[in-house]
Amino acid sequence: MAPLKLPALDPASVPEQRGSGYPEPFRSLMGERAKRKLGDACGLTKFGVNLVTLGPGGQSALRHWHTLEDEFICMLSGEVMLVTNDGEQVLRAGMCAGYAAGNRDGHYMVNRSGVPATYLEIGSRIDGDNAFYPDDDLMWCEDEAGVFAAHKDGRRY
Amino acid sequence: MAPLKLPALDPASVPEQRGSGYPEPFRSLMGERAKRKLGDACGLTKFGVNLVTLGPGGQSALRHWHTLEDEFICMLSGEVMLVTNDGEQVLRAGMCAGYAAGNRDGHYMVNRSGVPATYLEIGSRIDGDNAFYPDDDLMWCEDEAGVFAAHKDGRRY
Repeated sequence: MAPLKLPALDPASVPEQRGSGYPEPFRSLMGERAKRKLGDACGLTKFGVNLVTLGPGGQSALRHWHTLEDEFICMLSGEVMLVTNDGEQVLRAGMCAGYAAGNRDGHYMVNRSGVPATYLEIGSRIDGDNAFYPDDDLMWCEDEAGVFAAHKDGRRY
Repeated sequence: MAPLKLPALDPASVPEQRGSGYPEPFRSLMGERAKRKLGDACGLTKFGVNLVTLGPGGQSALRHWHTLEDEFICMLSGEVMLVTNDGEQVLRAGMCAGYAAGNRDGHYMVNRSGVPATYLEIGSRIDGDNAFYPDDDLMWCEDEAGVFAAHKDGRRY
């Protein structure tokens, strides 16, 4: 079969990216997490679409909520635990979750199984968005040079 | 297993919706097409997320492109034919497609197989978006009462 051509896209043709914008000790907590930026590969700018693989122990993010960004995920394989204010729920292939901008219900997903899990994550791209972390000593601040990570008392990481 | 609670969502808990905003004879061309509005069910407003089932012969839309709306689809099961300016490509489970706002490459998908196909479709919600239909005698016009469908010579449907 001939390779797909844009606007069609085979996710396997998009390089996996690892790493995190968090400072330590948070960055390492994400564990085995790889993302293929599918929306970027198609030239989309209004929202991002990532195909995420979480290895055993990997997590999607720190528990957080966004001020202006809507987020949505759809599980494709494996299972993860979704953690929110109300506790924990297992998400298996075919299940979804949606996090509306401004809803102060911090969320993250963690793979507590022994096999990789994959999901699609979608997030709107909105200028001026911020994220808050109810469980962790992290906030984002901005000076003339740009956005930086700080402790909640204001000290920079 | 207990039912999922928001922000988690089992797509099966969201009612299927049929129908189309197109006038005839275009509406009937969509065939067997049902959508579950997952993003709305989660309270999202910045983009829509629909789980779409296309029966045999069903199609996603008329061939079109958007001025301001980014669109993205991810195939979940079955297969569809994606039709664009450059011709046709088969999309099977796991394959994706992304349509950037303003790219004048009209697209639609049609299920030419004998079994249903399912996919996730995501579209940004942007005021003032318009869509154009290179193959069909349809355009959207606006008067003080709202948007209406017209022939390309301006006569209302």
